[in-house]
This record gives sequence, structure tokens and C-alpha cells, in this order.
Amino acid sequence: MLIVMKPQATPDEVEAVNERIRSMGLTPHSIPGAQRVAIGITGNKGALEPDVFVSMAGVADAIRVSQPFKLVSREVKEEDSIIDVGGIPVGGPEVMVMAGPCSVESKEQILEAAQGVRASGARLLRGGAFKPRTSPYEFQGLKEEGLKLLAMARDATGLKVVTEVKDTETLPMVAEYSDVLQVGARNMQNYSLLEALGNLRKPVLLKRGLSATIKELLMAAEYILSRGNYQVMLCERGIRTYETMTRNTLDINAVPVLKALTHLPVLVDPSHGIGLRKHVAAVARAGVAAGADGLIIEVHPCPEKALSDGHQSLSLPEFEALMRQVRGIGTAIGRPVA
Amino acid sequence: MLIVMKPQATPDEVEAVNERIRSMGLTPHSIPGAQRVAIGITGNKGALEPDVFVSMAGVADAIRVSQPFKLVSREVKEEDSIIDVGGIPVGGPEVMVMAGPCSVESKEQILEAAQGVRASGARLLRGGAFKPRTSPYEFQGLKEEGLKLLAMARDATGLKVVTEVKDTETLPMVAEYSDVLQVGARNMQNYSLLEALGNLRKPVLLKRGLSATIKELLMAAEYILSRGNYQVMLCERGIRTYETMTRNTLDINAVPVLKALTHLPVLVDPSHGIGLRKHVAAVARAGVAAGADGLIIEVHPCPEKALSDGHQSLSLPEFEALMRQVRGIGTAIGRPVA
Amino acid sequence: MLIVMKPQATPDEVEAVNERIRSMGLTPHSIPGAQRVAIGITGNKGALEPDVFVSMAGVADAIRVSQPFKLVSREVKEEDSIIDVGGIPVGGPEVMVMAGPCSVESKEQILEAAQGVRASGARLLRGGAFKPRTSPYEFQGLKEEGLKLLAMARDATGLKVVTEVKDTETLPMVAEYSDVLQVGARNMQNYSLLEALGNLRKPVLLKRGLSATIKELLMAAEYILSRGNYQVMLCERGIRTYETMTRNTLDINAVPVLKALTHLPVLVDPSHGIGLRKHVAAVARAGVAAGADGLIIEVHPCPEKALSDGHQSLSLPEFEALMRQVRGIGTAIGRPVA
Amino acid sequence: MLIVMKPQATPDEVEAVNERIRSMGLTPHSIPGAQRVAIGITGNKGALEPDVFVSMAGVADAIRVSQPFKLVSREVKEEDSIIDVGGIPVGGPEVMVMAGPCSVESKEQILEAAQGVRASGARLLRGGAFKPRTSPYEFQGLKEEGLKLLAMARDATGLKVVTEVKDTETLPMVAEYSDVLQVGARNMQNYSLLEALGNLRKPVLLKRGLSATIKELLMAAEYILSRGNYQVMLCERGIRTYETMTRNTLDINAVPVLKALTHLPVLVDPSHGIGLRKHVAAVARAGVAAGADGLIIEVHPCPEKALSDGHQSLSLPEFEALMRQVRGIGTAIGRPVA
Repeated sequence: MLIVMKPQATPDEVEAVNERIRSMGLTPHSIPGAQRVAIGITGNKGALEPDVFVSMAGVADAIRVSQPFKLVSREVKEEDSIIDVGGIPVGGPEVMVMAGPCSVESKEQILEAAQGVRASGARLLRGGAFKPRTSPYEFQGLKEEGLKLLAMARDATGLKVVTEVKDTETLPMVAEYSDVLQVGARNMQNYSLLEALGNLRKPVLLKRGLSATIKELLMAAEYILSRGNYQVMLCERGIRTYETMTRNTLDINAVPVLKALTHLPVLVDPSHGIGLRKHVAAVARAGVAAGADGLIIEVHPCPEKALSDGHQSLSLPEFEALMRQVRGIGTAIGRPVA
Repeated sequence: MLIVMKPQATPDEVEAVNERIRSMGLTPHSIPGAQRVAIGITGNKGALEPDVFVSMAGVADAIRVSQPFKLVSREVKEEDSIIDVGGIPVGGPEVMVMAGPCSVESKEQILEAAQGVRASGARLLRGGAFKPRTSPYEFQGLKEEGLKLLAMARDATGLKVVTEVKDTETLPMVAEYSDVLQVGARNMQNYSLLEALGNLRKPVLLKRGLSATIKELLMAAEYILSRGNYQVMLCERGIRTYETMTRNTLDINAVPVLKALTHLPVLVDPSHGIGLRKHVAAVARAGVAAGADGLIIEVHPCPEKALSDGHQSLSLPEFEALMRQVRGIGTAIGRPVA
Repeated sequence: MLIVMKPQATPDEVEAVNERIRSMGLTPHSIPGAQRVAIGITGNKGALEPDVFVSMAGVADAIRVSQPFKLVSREVKEEDSIIDVGGIPVGGPEVMVMAGPCSVESKEQILEAAQGVRASGARLLRGGAFKPRTSPYEFQGLKEEGLKLLAMARDATGLKVVTEVKDTETLPMVAEYSDVLQVGARNMQNYSLLEALGNLRKPVLLKRGLSATIKELLMAAEYILSRGNYQVMLCERGIRTYETMTRNTLDINAVPVLKALTHLPVLVDPSHGIGLRKHVAAVARAGVAAGADGLIIEVHPCPEKALSDGHQSLSLPEFEALMRQVRGIGTAIGRPVA
Repeated sequence: MLIVMKPQATPDEVEAVNERIRSMGLTPHSIPGAQRVAIGITGNKGALEPDVFVSMAGVADAIRVSQPFKLVSREVKEEDSIIDVGGIPVGGPEVMVMAGPCSVESKEQILEAAQGVRASGARLLRGGAFKPRTSPYEFQGLKEEGLKLLAMARDATGLKVVTEVKDTETLPMVAEYSDVLQVGARNMQNYSLLEALGNLRKPVLLKRGLSATIKELLMAAEYILSRGNYQVMLCERGIRTYETMTRNTLDINAVPVLKALTHLPVLVDPSHGIGLRKHVAAVARAGVAAGADGLIIEVHPCPEKALSDGHQSLSLPEFEALMRQVRGIGTAIGRPVA
């Protein structure tokens, strides 16, 4: 159930509706918009009666929400959500680019990467400190040392930091050093982690699981929003199919479909989406052309020597060339690239 | 095995190599290039010895081809193949757009569609006269009458005609009326049909099978080229995955991967690729941004009344708007849209 | 629409219903059962009114059929269809085993295979004379010579012959020499071939396409039945998934699901289903345990020397061992193995 | 690297090898067998030299292990591992059946289920207390109260308890009440959880992820074994494919493939594998016929009223009928059902 308040509804009227919802043992979620406030209701087992609410002062409408996702839905909030990452707006008119190495490896590496991607136009720095790996015998990241290096690179460049959090135990530590908490594909349905992220008030970048449907991605985001953290960005990063020539199959369809279903920003990760360095640029261009709000790209000062994902990381000159192309496409479709 | 001739090799030297190949019971395929001629060899069961050829006059090199596809490979022919469709070059610098209804339904419908798409910049007219359908009880197309209407629309507009051929029995009839013979996804591995098309000297548009790998698509094209018909265009039209919100999953990765592996033109079909009218434009833009040589799009004067695929057909104004976007993207990446 | 006649309905009453259907421009399909006759109607675009028929003499009921497949449905014919292959019943109480080499290679090979599999209990001989291959450069079968060798092996052993037909051109020839016409996975939606098979009155073994849904398999069978050929057996042979350790993923679920939806016999092909010789037996046992009406298995006198599919062919002693296991399972579930 | 000791090697000789491995900064894993001891080595980045070890007393051989999984591999330990669940051997000659409701709902429900499945031959009781759900608004289980009810049912029936653990926070609590810790499909690559389970010395039932490859499942088990917990059972529970008529596609091929690659027991979950109550029995039979060491089946005293998964839960009489069939198949293949 979604309560849509009138544009001129007063704060007291909004609070009265919230109070009524709480009195029924349910949870209200105020969703402020440019024109008016909407209030999502969660916690109900079955359908609610609209009549209870439509007669209340300041209420414009009470709408039954048919889809299983509520708070993430555009039916609940029509305007795009713009996530404020320390002053950088993600989901607004500009396309934002996040770039950096798969793993943080050393002070020199992360600084060179950060300065390089900043020079080409990236506004956020990506880099992994905790790396979930398929094999227990592979490099698992520099952990806290890696986080410190990311924070140092932020201080040096002004770029905001995006890094993966892989469990609830290390969440406080990762949250302390980073600006955006990334949930990796393997953890998209790690509900304990999602709930913990829902209790924070910090931006989250939620990657689509390897074989998650679009609906499941939205439901995973719903876990976070339902706890009160509305700062969620979604990321298409390729799905698992039968095709073996590419690491994953980037689902370009997901971009317009998600943009239509949800008000949350939608990013594209071309690096994991195709997994082949020489083709990352083509997929990045396609992502922007399809309407993505941003890109997250693996860039390494020396891809040949990367400890992980070197085969899909761009060099700094390749990234610079890509940014020029992406800017042209952004201009063509009316979405300037920051 | 691929024989690469020296740039200054004479026609007699080329013929001498061909003759040597024939004398071994094998088939030579001359592949003319801008700089030099290459000769592919097919028919051999095992590996051939390069020594036989490298000592011949005019021969620059003899290269063992490792991949199972030969004639379609960029290793065999480095430059892009440009398919000449009655004066319209597909695979050249310009991006070509093919558009029209799923099925030919009537004289009025096909004429209105043809004139409309031409006005917006399409150079080829698509339209189905023989429709393979999942159910034996569904509309199967107007058959020969449909072909005649397509030919009439060609005469009226100058657009070239692309239409599907579904079996060898009707191939002569379809070939008579059309400019490009389209092989549908379900027939991509109908080898008898591929062989018959290989015996013609007419452009073929080969669609990727519903769950065909990129390699299988190239092998299907190889069937056609190995019979001597080199005028083949490939088309990514979406693959089958677990995602159910879209009709298929357009494999945008396939565009750069195919362009790297083969010299044949690569088209994108956004209509089947996503199957949702309101999102066709986003996928079409992505296809061009990723480097496709052309688009094939379903457009209907009145999508609501279409006998087939109305849910994924653009109206004429929607197509006009899409063409404007696509032109901007083409300009941004240095590929003008015709 | 399905007209269910009363058990005591006379032939004249049945004919009157047929006549009424024809007078509406539609096609009646009489489906004789043990207890009563049912009449399927095809050719209608929209829904029919039951009232027209329920008042006719001898009619018990007129049922709207909701699923897109009609003639293959158990709603239309409740009892199992038993296909009579020259005296061998497929789809009856006994589980039937078809075995033999992937390709017919020589007189000695096919005779040794036929005698071997017959000794172990197979009742039908499989063997390919026309081989659809992914590459145009691979062995394509002995063609008519292969068919003659199969017929010779039939004469020598009494086994009935199952062989693949790959196009309409060679259909008359294949039909002349064989007892069951096999449609391969790649041709499951080759509608021209299905229609031609529908016009014959000869058993067909229809394999599930590589990425066909269960519903699409049933619709492909519907093409054959709708032309009047009711002698169709379905075959689960593995589907395409992301798993690469096995050639295909045998969809064991399809066996009980198909048996519930259709009256047609359901076979399992464990050889293609897993593609690994040492594991074929495990999958064959699973197929029988799940309720399959038969198995079709690749067996070669010398798998190491097979011209095709040697990696998934059983030797004769391996086949003999498998038959013993399968017989035990058949007994345990009340389905004796012939 | 795997060090294979001679059958007559002394404990001191084994310890000397362990000491040598530790002195290189690596970790030895003794894997006791019936005939001889083998020692796996983990922690090495690159290949090790066999020479260091083959000259030591008591060493029979030093083998380079090519696959990325080591400790789970049959190359490392040839004989089947038998997991001892409080006296019940899983992975031995007998097929073990685990059964019970999806969720623990009440004292009456779990007791009735436990007594019912025990009467039909189950030796372990399954039941969920912590339920990961796609939607944050669905029933999430009775949590600790559910665990207490499971323990109560164990006391009342002697059945051992299998229940899911969904995060590291609740792991100590779940471990206290249960006999087997189940890792659900969504958590198969939750490495923090796997590592925590590796530090326990308690049996783990690891379910295959929704789109995990067989290799990834083995690598996930490797995470647990590499921490020293060797009591791991694997479970095939259906993978995600394009087929929509069934909830998942049970990958029957995985059973023989896993049995060949690993010494760990392999179970089949037919309830999630097909997701359709009326077809669970067919898939369960197939699992045993294919060689599974056990089954885990959802059974509810009243499936129509289940709070979760009622559509795929068997009633007690259906379970009793299934057990009779499964026993017959077990006998036929020489694997008695406990």
C-alpha cells in the first residue's frame, strides 16, 4: 500500500498518517519527492483497505501496489532518486564514472590509478580491499591496509571511494574508510548483509547476482530500503549464460527495464560484463547509450601486472580514450558525462 | 590452411596456387583484398603442410588456421567485407538501417510502412511473407502474395527488400522477389538450407540461433561461404536466458566479439532482442554504440493492430525519433548513419 | 475445443460431429480411446462456443482447451498412446531400448553393433546416415549407402531401424529404408520438415531442441499431429545450460512433466544428455527411474575408433552391463524392460 | 601437491613430512585412508618440486594436483568419505534419507512430521528455523524457537537434525541445536560463512548455488576443508535454466560427475530440484538410480497449510509411498536404503 499525500499536505498531516500506520502494527516509510510526499507501508501480510487512509486529511490517494517490490518501485516514487556521494550526485542528469583497479595492491599503484582516472574525468575511485575469490588459495586482498590506501588516495585526489564489503563482521571497518559500500554479485542475496546495510545511512552500490533476475535484484534492494537506507544504486554487471567466449553476458536490456521499474540509479560494469580488455570500451559505450546513470570500470596503471582481473582492466591511456567516446555519446543523448 | 599472396603477385601465380590445391582434391577460395589476395583451402581432413605452398612463386606465407571457422575469419581476410545490396553497401563506414513490419499484411500496410521508414532514413525494407510460428494454428504469413507486395513496395520506394526464407522448397520463389535472404534464428543450423544459400550468389542475413554460441553462428556462416557465397551478414537478435522480463537477452557483447573474429558485417535486431516496444530504442542505441554495422527494426504503421509482434513494433513517429538518436550516436563514434 | 463423445456414441453420431466441424471451415481430429472417442478441433482463430456441439446426439461434453497445444495434450486423450513400430509397442507397459552407433560407418560395424545390442535386449537399432554437423568440414554420414546398411542390419537381426531425417528433400529416401524417422534437436523447429512428417503415416521420434522449452517441444509435436500423423515419440536429450563439464544438461524433470501433460511416449537419450561415456549408464538408470518409456543409447563395437561421438558411445560389454541395471530398476518400479 | 605415504609408513615418518611442509611456510592436511595416509599441501602460490618429498622415508609418491580443488578431490583421497552424523553414516553403502518440513512452524507440526518421516525410514530430520527469503516481507522462520523445537523433535524421535545456517552471527546458536549445518544455495559463495564453518568440527551440508558450476561447488567445499573441517556433504538441488515449467532444473548429470571427482558424499534434493509436489517422487527415484548417497526431501503433515514451500512438500502418505519405490531402486543397484 502506498499513501500519496497532497502537494500541500502539512507535516502534521503526514505524521498523522504515519501514526495511524504504526497503530496497525505496520511500518511507514516517508518518501519525499519534489512535489509531494508519499508513504510506503511495509509489514502487512495481506492486502490493506485503502478506505482507512483516503478519508484522512492531506491524503490524495491510497494505491495498492501489485508488484512484490514496493519502496524501490517507480509506482511509489516517480522521480529519479539522486544519491549524494559526498557532494557527487549519482542518478542526476550527468553520467558518473567510477574507475580504478580490481584490487588495491600498493600505495604507488592506487595513487597512480586514482590520479590517472581523475585526470580523464572519473569522479569516484573503485578498488577492492576484501576480495571474495572462488578459490581459498587465491589473493584475498590487502584488507584494512587496502582500505587505508584508498582513504589516502581520496585525500590526495578528492575522488570518492567505492569498495566492496563482503560480510557483516568487516562492515564497520569498510564503512569507516569508504564513501560507497559495494555489494558484490555473490552477496546479492546475503540477506544478513543487506539488512546490516539497511541499518546504515550510507550509499550502497548493489551488484546484480550472477544469475539473478531483474526482479530479484529489485527485491534485494528492497531489503536495504525496507530498513530505512534509501541510498542504493543498482549495477548490471553481466549474467551467466551458455556463451563461453565472454566471461559473462552483459544484459543491456536490464538498463531500460530497470530505469522504467525503479527510481534508483542504474550503473553498468562493462569490465565484468564482458571480461575482455579489448572489448570493454564497446560495452561501456553501449551502457551509456542505453541510458545508464554511470559506469564502473576496472583501470590499472599496468594491467599486465595486476594481481587480479588484469585481463579485463584498461590501461590509463585506454581509459582516457574511452572517456572521450563516452562523452560524445552522452552529448548525443542529452546526458553529459561528468 | 590459408595462402597469403604477395601484394605484387600476378593473376597467373594466383591461378597456379589454385591449380595445385585442386590437384590435391581440395577446394581453393580466392579472397580478394585491397592490398593482396589470400586463398583459403577447404576440404582437407587433417592438417596440411605449408612447405608445399611457400616455395611457389608469388606466395608470401602459408598459415595454419587454428579455429574451426576459416573463410569467415579475420585471420583469413583482415579487411571488413562490404556486402553490396543492389548498390547499398552494408559493412562499410555507414551504419545501415533496415526497417518494416514483422509480417506483410496488406498493400496499404506495407506501402505506408515502406514510405514511412524511408522518410526517416531506412535504406532497406524488412517484412515477412513466410512466418515460422511456434504454433501450427497461428498466422503463417501471406506467402507469395506477401512477396509480391514487398516487390511492389520496393518499386514504389527504392528500398531494397529483406525477407525470411524458411525452407529450400520456397527458396527460389523468395530469391526471385527479394534482395536479401534472411535466415531466421530457428533455421540457423538448418544445414540443407544453408547449403542451398551457399549455392546462390545473393546476400544472406543470418540470424543467430536462440541459444547458439558465437562460434556456432560463425560455423553456420562458414557453411554458406564454403559453397562460394561470400555475401553474408550476421545478426545478433537476443539469446535465451533465465530472465523472463524480456523476450530474449540481447547479447551486446557479441557485437565487438564478432567484429574482432570475422570480416563479415554484424547487425543488431533490437526488436527481438528485448521484445518490448518501449525499450527497443534504448537497445538500438546500444547496438550502434557497440559498433554494429546496421540495425534491423520492426516498424508498423499501427502496432496495436499488427497480426504478429505488435508488442515489439515501433510506430512510425517512434522510429523517426529513434533515427535521430541513432544518428547522434553514430556521429559521436565516427560511424555516420545512412 | 475438444468434443468428448459418450462411450455408447455410434459411428454415425461421430461422423455428424465431424461434418458439423467441417461445415465451419475447421478440421476435426478423431482421437480413438479405449472407452470413448474424442474429437479435437483445429483451425479456429478464436474461441468456439461449446453450445453448438453439446446438444448434438452422442456428445458427452465440449471442453475449451486452454493450453496452446491440443492434440498432444492429455486433456484431449487421457490414455497413453502406444506407437506401433512394426509390431514393437513404444509407450506401453514395457520400457523399450533403442541402441546403435552414432553414424553408420561400414557393413561390419553396423552388423556387429546390431547383433550386439540385440543380444543385450535392444529392440530397435539406431544409426545415422545423414549427419547434421556444426562444421561443414566434418564427416556428414554415408547417406543412402548408410540407409542400405541399416536395412541390411534390420534384415539380419529383426531390429527395427531408427534414423535421422535432416530435410524434406531426403525424407522420401529415409522413409523408405527406416521404421522410425528421427528429428534431431537442431530441426525441432524446422516447420517445413515437421509438416512433411505430419503428412506421412510413419512413426516419428522428435528430439527436444537444444534450448527448447517443454512447451515448445509439445508445440513441435502438435505440428505433426495437426497434419494427421499421430505416431510421435518425444525424446529428452539434454538442454543447453551454463555448465561446461558435461555436453548438455539432461533435464530429468522433463520426464514426469511431459508424462503428465501429454499422452505421447517419452524417451531419454543419456548419450547426448551427458556426453561422457563413463557416466551414460548413471543417466540411463535415472531416466528409467523417472518414468521414461524408453531409452536411445549410442553403442559402438569400438568407441575409440568411431567417426563421430566416440567419447559418448558405450562398448557392447558396457551396454550389456547397463541393460542388467536398467532391468532391475524397471522391475522395482513396475515397468519391465523389454 | 599431494604426498602419498606408503601403506607401512610410520606415524613418525608422516609427522616428518608434515614438519617439512610447515618449514616451507605451507600447511599439511593429513587425509587418513583405509590403506594409507595421504598429505595434501595448501598455501603454495606456484608449483612445488616433488623431489623434496619423494626421497623422504615412508613416502610412496608426490603428485602434482592439476585441478584447482585439492582436498575435495578423489585424486587426493580415493575412497569415499563417510560422514558420521551422531552415529549415522552418510556416504557409506546405505542411501540415507533426510526429510521434514521447509520451515518449523509449531511443536505439533514438527513432532508429527518427525514421527511420520521416521516411521517411513528417514534417519535425519530437516526443518528451517532461519529462512532466507527473496522478499523482506515474507515469513523468515521461528529462529531460536524453531531450533528448540527441532532439538525437542530429535529427543522425541532419535532423528538427527539438519537445519540451515544463514550467517556467521547466528552460527554458534544454530550449531548448538543441530547435527548438520546446511548452507543454502544463496550462500554457497558466502566465503565468510564457509570459513567459519571450516573452523568448526561439525558436519556441513553444502547446497549447490542456483547457477554454480560443478567446479564452483567443489571450490566452495574446498574453502571448508582447507580450514580443517572435512565433514562436508554436497547437495544437488537444481540449477537455473530458461525452462519455466519447473522451479529449477535438477542437474542429474551432476551426481555421477561429482561422485567421480570427489570423495565427499553427494545428496539430491528433489523438492527444490523440480518444485512440483506431484513430480518430486520421480526425481527422487532418479537421484537414487543415478548414484546419490542420500536424499533430502520436504515433507509436511499438511502441505496445503504450510507457511512456505507447500507446493513442493509431500504429505506423509506420499513420502511413505516414495520410500517404498526408492527402496526397490536401491536394492536393484546394490545400494540399500536405510
